Amino acid sequence: MTDSKTPWSGRFEKTPGRFLQEFGASLPVDKRMWAEDIRGSIAHARMLAMQGVISEADADAIETGLSEIYREIRDGHFEFDIADEDVHMAIERALTERIGPAGARLHTGRSRNDQVATDTRLYAKRATTDLAFRVVCVRKALVRLAEDNLDVVMPGYTHLQKAQPVLFSHHMLAYSWMFARDFTRLRHAYEAADVLPLGSAALAGTTFDLDREYVAKRLGFVEVAPNSMDAVSDRDFLLDLVYACTVGQVHLSRLAEELILWSTEEFGFVTMDDEFSTGSSIMPQKKNPDFAELVRGKTGRVVGDLSALLVTLKGLPLAYNKDMQEDKEVAFDAIDTLAASLRAMSGMLDTLKVNGDRMFAGAQGGFMAATDLADYLVGKSVPFRQAHEIVGKLVLKLEQEGRTLQDLTPAEFASASDDFGADAAKAVDIRAVVERRTSEGGTATSAVTQQLAKAKGTLDADNAWLESREA
Amino acid sequence: MTDSKTPWSGRFEKTPGRFLQEFGASLPVDKRMWAEDIRGSIAHARMLAMQGVISEADADAIETGLSEIYREIRDGHFEFDIADEDVHMAIERALTERIGPAGARLHTGRSRNDQVATDTRLYAKRATTDLAFRVVCVRKALVRLAEDNLDVVMPGYTHLQKAQPVLFSHHMLAYSWMFARDFTRLRHAYEAADVLPLGSAALAGTTFDLDREYVAKRLGFVEVAPNSMDAVSDRDFLLDLVYACTVGQVHLSRLAEELILWSTEEFGFVTMDDEFSTGSSIMPQKKNPDFAELVRGKTGRVVGDLSALLVTLKGLPLAYNKDMQEDKEVAFDAIDTLAASLRAMSGMLDTLKVNGDRMFAGAQGGFMAATDLADYLVGKSVPFRQAHEIVGKLVLKLEQEGRTLQDLTPAEFASASDDFGADAAKAVDIRAVVERRTSEGGTATSAVTQQLAKAKGTLDADNAWLESREA
Amino acid sequence: MTDSKTPWSGRFEKTPGRFLQEFGASLPVDKRMWAEDIRGSIAHARMLAMQGVISEADADAIETGLSEIYREIRDGHFEFDIADEDVHMAIERALTERIGPAGARLHTGRSRNDQVATDTRLYAKRATTDLAFRVVCVRKALVRLAEDNLDVVMPGYTHLQKAQPVLFSHHMLAYSWMFARDFTRLRHAYEAADVLPLGSAALAGTTFDLDREYVAKRLGFVEVAPNSMDAVSDRDFLLDLVYACTVGQVHLSRLAEELILWSTEEFGFVTMDDEFSTGSSIMPQKKNPDFAELVRGKTGRVVGDLSALLVTLKGLPLAYNKDMQEDKEVAFDAIDTLAASLRAMSGMLDTLKVNGDRMFAGAQGGFMAATDLADYLVGKSVPFRQAHEIVGKLVLKLEQEGRTLQDLTPAEFASASDDFGADAAKAVDIRAVVERRTSEGGTATSAVTQQLAKAKGTLDADNAWLESREA
Amino acid sequence: MTDSKTPWSGRFEKTPGRFLQEFGASLPVDKRMWAEDIRGSIAHARMLAMQGVISEADADAIETGLSEIYREIRDGHFEFDIADEDVHMAIERALTERIGPAGARLHTGRSRNDQVATDTRLYAKRATTDLAFRVVCVRKALVRLAEDNLDVVMPGYTHLQKAQPVLFSHHMLAYSWMFARDFTRLRHAYEAADVLPLGSAALAGTTFDLDREYVAKRLGFVEVAPNSMDAVSDRDFLLDLVYACTVGQVHLSRLAEELILWSTEEFGFVTMDDEFSTGSSIMPQKKNPDFAELVRGKTGRVVGDLSALLVTLKGLPLAYNKDMQEDKEVAFDAIDTLAASLRAMSGMLDTLKVNGDRMFAGAQGGFMAATDLADYLVGKSVPFRQAHEIVGKLVLKLEQEGRTLQDLTPAEFASASDDFGADAAKAVDIRAVVERRTSEGGTATSAVTQQLAKAKGTLDADNAWLESREA
Repeated sequence: MTDSKTPWSGRFEKTPGRFLQEFGASLPVDKRMWAEDIRGSIAHARMLAMQGVISEADADAIETGLSEIYREIRDGHFEFDIADEDVHMAIERALTERIGPAGARLHTGRSRNDQVATDTRLYAKRATTDLAFRVVCVRKALVRLAEDNLDVVMPGYTHLQKAQPVLFSHHMLAYSWMFARDFTRLRHAYEAADVLPLGSAALAGTTFDLDREYVAKRLGFVEVAPNSMDAVSDRDFLLDLVYACTVGQVHLSRLAEELILWSTEEFGFVTMDDEFSTGSSIMPQKKNPDFAELVRGKTGRVVGDLSALLVTLKGLPLAYNKDMQEDKEVAFDAIDTLAASLRAMSGMLDTLKVNGDRMFAGAQGGFMAATDLADYLVGKSVPFRQAHEIVGKLVLKLEQEGRTLQDLTPAEFASASDDFGADAAKAVDIRAVVERRTSEGGTATSAVTQQLAKAKGTLDADNAWLESREA
Repeated sequence: MTDSKTPWSGRFEKTPGRFLQEFGASLPVDKRMWAEDIRGSIAHARMLAMQGVISEADADAIETGLSEIYREIRDGHFEFDIADEDVHMAIERALTERIGPAGARLHTGRSRNDQVATDTRLYAKRATTDLAFRVVCVRKALVRLAEDNLDVVMPGYTHLQKAQPVLFSHHMLAYSWMFARDFTRLRHAYEAADVLPLGSAALAGTTFDLDREYVAKRLGFVEVAPNSMDAVSDRDFLLDLVYACTVGQVHLSRLAEELILWSTEEFGFVTMDDEFSTGSSIMPQKKNPDFAELVRGKTGRVVGDLSALLVTLKGLPLAYNKDMQEDKEVAFDAIDTLAASLRAMSGMLDTLKVNGDRMFAGAQGGFMAATDLADYLVGKSVPFRQAHEIVGKLVLKLEQEGRTLQDLTPAEFASASDDFGADAAKAVDIRAVVERRTSEGGTATSAVTQQLAKAKGTLDADNAWLESREA
Repeated sequence: MTDSKTPWSGRFEKTPGRFLQEFGASLPVDKRMWAEDIRGSIAHARMLAMQGVISEADADAIETGLSEIYREIRDGHFEFDIADEDVHMAIERALTERIGPAGARLHTGRSRNDQVATDTRLYAKRATTDLAFRVVCVRKALVRLAEDNLDVVMPGYTHLQKAQPVLFSHHMLAYSWMFARDFTRLRHAYEAADVLPLGSAALAGTTFDLDREYVAKRLGFVEVAPNSMDAVSDRDFLLDLVYACTVGQVHLSRLAEELILWSTEEFGFVTMDDEFSTGSSIMPQKKNPDFAELVRGKTGRVVGDLSALLVTLKGLPLAYNKDMQEDKEVAFDAIDTLAASLRAMSGMLDTLKVNGDRMFAGAQGGFMAATDLADYLVGKSVPFRQAHEIVGKLVLKLEQEGRTLQDLTPAEFASASDDFGADAAKAVDIRAVVERRTSEGGTATSAVTQQLAKAKGTLDADNAWLESREA
Repeated sequence: MTDSKTPWSGRFEKTPGRFLQEFGASLPVDKRMWAEDIRGSIAHARMLAMQGVISEADADAIETGLSEIYREIRDGHFEFDIADEDVHMAIERALTERIGPAGARLHTGRSRNDQVATDTRLYAKRATTDLAFRVVCVRKALVRLAEDNLDVVMPGYTHLQKAQPVLFSHHMLAYSWMFARDFTRLRHAYEAADVLPLGSAALAGTTFDLDREYVAKRLGFVEVAPNSMDAVSDRDFLLDLVYACTVGQVHLSRLAEELILWSTEEFGFVTMDDEFSTGSSIMPQKKNPDFAELVRGKTGRVVGDLSALLVTLKGLPLAYNKDMQEDKEVAFDAIDTLAASLRAMSGMLDTLKVNGDRMFAGAQGGFMAATDLADYLVGKSVPFRQAHEIVGKLVLKLEQEGRTLQDLTPAEFASASDDFGADAAKAVDIRAVVERRTSEGGTATSAVTQQLAKAKGTLDADNAWLESREA
């Protein structure tokens, strides 16, 4: 530890002890924003020079010094010191040590309040596009699974009870739409972050003649924050990002739950790749879907992160309060957790072995053609509720006898209802049941093929947006 | 209680007891969606007839019957019965009692799963525009307060310590921008809800030749859900709405906190109207800001609602699970709480008495011109950090002597730094301090006047969107 | 609505409008504490008379009037009016209308702040014992299931993968211990509530010579709150109760998840009674475990209730703040939800059909004797990790060949390891595997029988506590 | 990184990549339990030898090896490797590298499932007593403040409006009782953790003849877990601990809020020590209560930790699931946050400057003697509600005239009510108002002195428990 003075040492008679230094410091958390901090400072310095607030020579020295520090941090040669409290002070101190008084002039017309808000927004924008990219990867894996397995029929469930047979592809595409919505949510979070606070100073704006539009353009922000008090105390953009992470993780938890279920001996619908499974230290035969379980289990921490941020902000008066320093750790945790979980899920899906035979066998059970048999009756002008009751009684009888709908004889059909004709047997063929659901968004191969095209179109559009962000 | 059979009575041998009926029923919660249910059913019936699935005569009977039921419920003459389990069954039963078998045919090609999703989306869209309207009212109240009090200077705070003087109008507008973001968030929630699930049936689509685009257009949805499994198990639109409510309520909690602080004898910045205060049963002198406290306290329940919905959805496999029935009560609670809190806040702001003299008096304290004094030195080419230290020492000295920056003599200025000139005294006039902050988004009257125009422009644009929704 | 004046009408010039009345009123929520309110008031009145603060005649009139009101409310003849704001005002107004000035004297030496805290604690104590009783019912149902099915062997899972065979009774008793801890948690919540706030008045105590110990004894509290400011602003006892509800509901969600899984066609381990299942409006064959799903889904709202209460209390200064009015609705919701869920779970367990044959068949799969085979080798002095690896290779080979451990020939055993003897085959008999786990707390019948006795002993002790509360 | 094989390498054909290794590893989190892991392993080894399961020589080698590793880790010479996945594997691998096959025998009769549960419980017990100690420190600081300032009168608030004058000591003691309840909650969490899971093996118990009572006694557990499945999947003890942390942090947030308020220029009741304040990088005069704000802001993360753990556990079937690995990070975060916040709060209180004059001056405002004036009338047999109204009108009049209750003339008293006598003026002396509240738990000096003794007695009892834990 250096004995560097705290930035407000003129005011105080004592220096804080080591414990308080650590309790108060945000450096261990916010140092990951070092690149954003340097980028923002260079833009600020160039603007100050352009406006004549500092000299061009000072701006040059600042830019050169910061570029040097950038390379040092990037290459792992920079020593952060907890006494610097945060990444902003650490970099400014290093700059001043290198270039002297010009370094101190960098802080003209800004405050840590607008600086930290600016860095965090730059970081949030970058993190959001990274997450959006990973969401696209999961969607691609789902679409690929759907495309490669168009002939696989599986049981569709409601209440985890067999309901109606569906294409496995249809099931995979259902998830692709969930994640498409996550992309939109991330995009909204990106837009929320895309506003420049720099120039708001501590809370009231500044007396210097700044050109905020120039800084915004240089840093890639579409807008300048319209109110300095709001600019330094607004954390909505982090809430929006953490919220998008939370919903994404809840979606992953649902898919993870299915992969865990489907990997049981009882279901046996899929086999996870060895790489995504682990064994037991005591039971040699175990092959556990650990990564899917972790993805599901991590939902807790992301929900917790969202609660944490909301609780921290509740009831805070304007403008900046130190409570807000707590915003970054939870936001970074939510970002990191979703990023890793998306990557793990992509891997699981990319290597998933689909056991089509087990799925089709499963689709034979559960009287899943019952709805179609009822619909058959409706086609013969039987009111729906009555048709429902006739078929319900048939199912009850067959279940008690250990038989299936396919076992029904023409005589049994006839005794159940006069409206059953010779073609009643066709109504209960499982593949036919699937192919009958041709309505838009339905599970028939024809409808799913159209849906696939739509899903790819949406992926293309989202990819185009992503590329425009990174250009 | 009637002895009406449950809809699945053909399957079961026993009827559930009263306790289980109540435990399982969603009727007390979902009956508020009666208008949406009827609207959706009429659209479905007309489409079925158009497609030749049912006869025009049946569709006419259904529409007439449902219109009758609509009027009865609206006028309070309809008897809901818990035995009907939910609003959908209640209305369908009443319809069938009235028009016979045609009533039962209404359920052709749909399921309660897509029906409940459709009703909930219709309701969510309506609730969202209502909330957006109330957000506009609060923003208008804030803008009006800003406009009417442009001459009022108050202390600006960070860490609840006096920092720099600001215009009261600037402080009010800071909140108006928060609520402007809430409007955007509600608009995103509206767009998330604006997708038609009807036609997805239980989970797999339907065998009937439905025209989903027609139904979407008739009900005012811009899109048809592309995947039937996703359509019946997607509750993202409710999450988005509850999230928007949560952030809005957190914003209200911050404003409420300030109103409570400002109403204390110690601050005395505002006086709440009697209508928005209450007394004490034991202390005759009390005038408590109860409604602001309630608005702040209710933040808990909305944060809780969001957690509740996320927890309920975590780890649920596709497609519909009964757990999802829990979605509506929490969503309705979040909607109702934010709606009432916004209305209460509008009222508080509309009737708020602004004590400009107390605010201006407060702005004299706290050495709030210190930054400008430091900036003055920077203007004389003193490096910022050094200027900061010089002024810090001056403040410490004055504080110990119980004096203010305005009390400094030219000699004292000179002894503190050679760079202080005769004009140093002007640097510390409070109103001058405010007026110096002319940078975009700053607190000078000129900057705030521009900001006001911008805030009104945003209000107009949002109002236009609202009107287009209601047209 | 009556035009009754609000209690602070002397102070204010305007009366609140209907909206604000409803926004501010707690009556719809707190009226369920009417019996506690009356009980507390009678105790207070008798004490006031005993201490000579009011006359015995006044106390008699108060007690007679309140007893009358008690009967009216109990019998449904009392009209609550939202204008009364809360249950305390409603009852006091009714009393004063009946007995005149003596009614107004009842409020001597108390405030709504200590009155509401007292009523809520009385209610919490009653609710806690009710919940504890329901927890006991679930434990009894589990113990009964364990006792009645001691011969049933099922697969034990970790990671939802078959791990080692266990007795179904062992699995049921695992849950009984969870719920035993819930009983303890409720008991702690009861003790937290068991402190009398009455006598604290608004926040500072009272000038009247009250006998708080007498009131405590009369109302059944073991202690008197030692600090008046804490007494009126402490809601820890509600937090403890809501927390106990939350953990209990999370436990129920785990059991519900298993019942849902076990009810699938794929597992088939149990059959839920018709009474606890529901059908589908569209699929006649469905039999859904709706009530188990609801119990699981309701976990969200209880977790939300706990968050809500914590958020509401965060950052509140002493003493009473109106925010605290929000405490009761969430607490009541948590109580009601757990109470109903426990009752539903008791019913499900009491009527559960255990499919022992399906369980035993399931226990044959999954190479679950692998651990014992490894232990067999350890018994022959093979280091555990090495034994683990030998058996792991055997399992991999058998799995690829579609065979089980029972199919291994002596030659195969020998070739896998020299340490396998002729008795290796015995090591892999499933029932033998179960019976070998005789360590304390293990799954062998002998160990489970001892465990059953212990579980019953704990139940007896808890029942005794419950009875002592109700005596 | 070593290329050590994963423990289940016999089963799998591929090794996981670096990403998956990190995603799945708990080592970075659980390595802080190294001392507990070693302690548990030595106890297990000695018991195995005692029971003849392994040789005494093996047990000696294990104990010697583990003791060496203990010293290395303690002294910072041990290299943890992420490839070891968790602290248990890291230590066991190091042991086996040192002592050969005997090291592998240590794992006989146990599994990572019961090992991790045992380590976590040992850690939880230690953390709980540490937290309880820190809670005691805060209580001592509060009691000391109360004792040292018995003569200081301050305004007591409800709704943040001045209500009745109280002793500053009374206010401090209110917090001491809150923290006394936190001690009890931590004690309950300690008791919940005080149960030994070791001997449960993976989930079903073990075939080895273990002496679990011996291990329990040696490790300081009062009980042995009665059911092996529950033992490995129970995380209630962590929930109880995190819950205790959450309530403690919410209590701290309330005290922090008051310190922040009291530190404002407007209140001015206290001055925080320089060590617990920080300055501004831009405003030289600022002295911000950063540490109190951080304590308040950190409430969010602890509430989030509790939500996280609840969400993770929701709906998990028995027995161990990988999701549970997420338990420790949130629990450790809650523990660390509360520990640091308690330490910071102790420091703030120990160095707090109490501005008694400002408090007393504040107590003159707000018509706080109004209740006593009403009580005076009640003493003259005026019904309370009527007395309340008379005084309310007086207050309204005085407020409009800018006068106080002390300014009232005998004529004014008389015209307000015939019942006011010559002694009415005495009723409104602020110190007299305080001293009149002599009821048990009230704010009169006599009552507070008794309360102080009680608070010290409770501290002594809690300290005695703490010492008995550490003995």
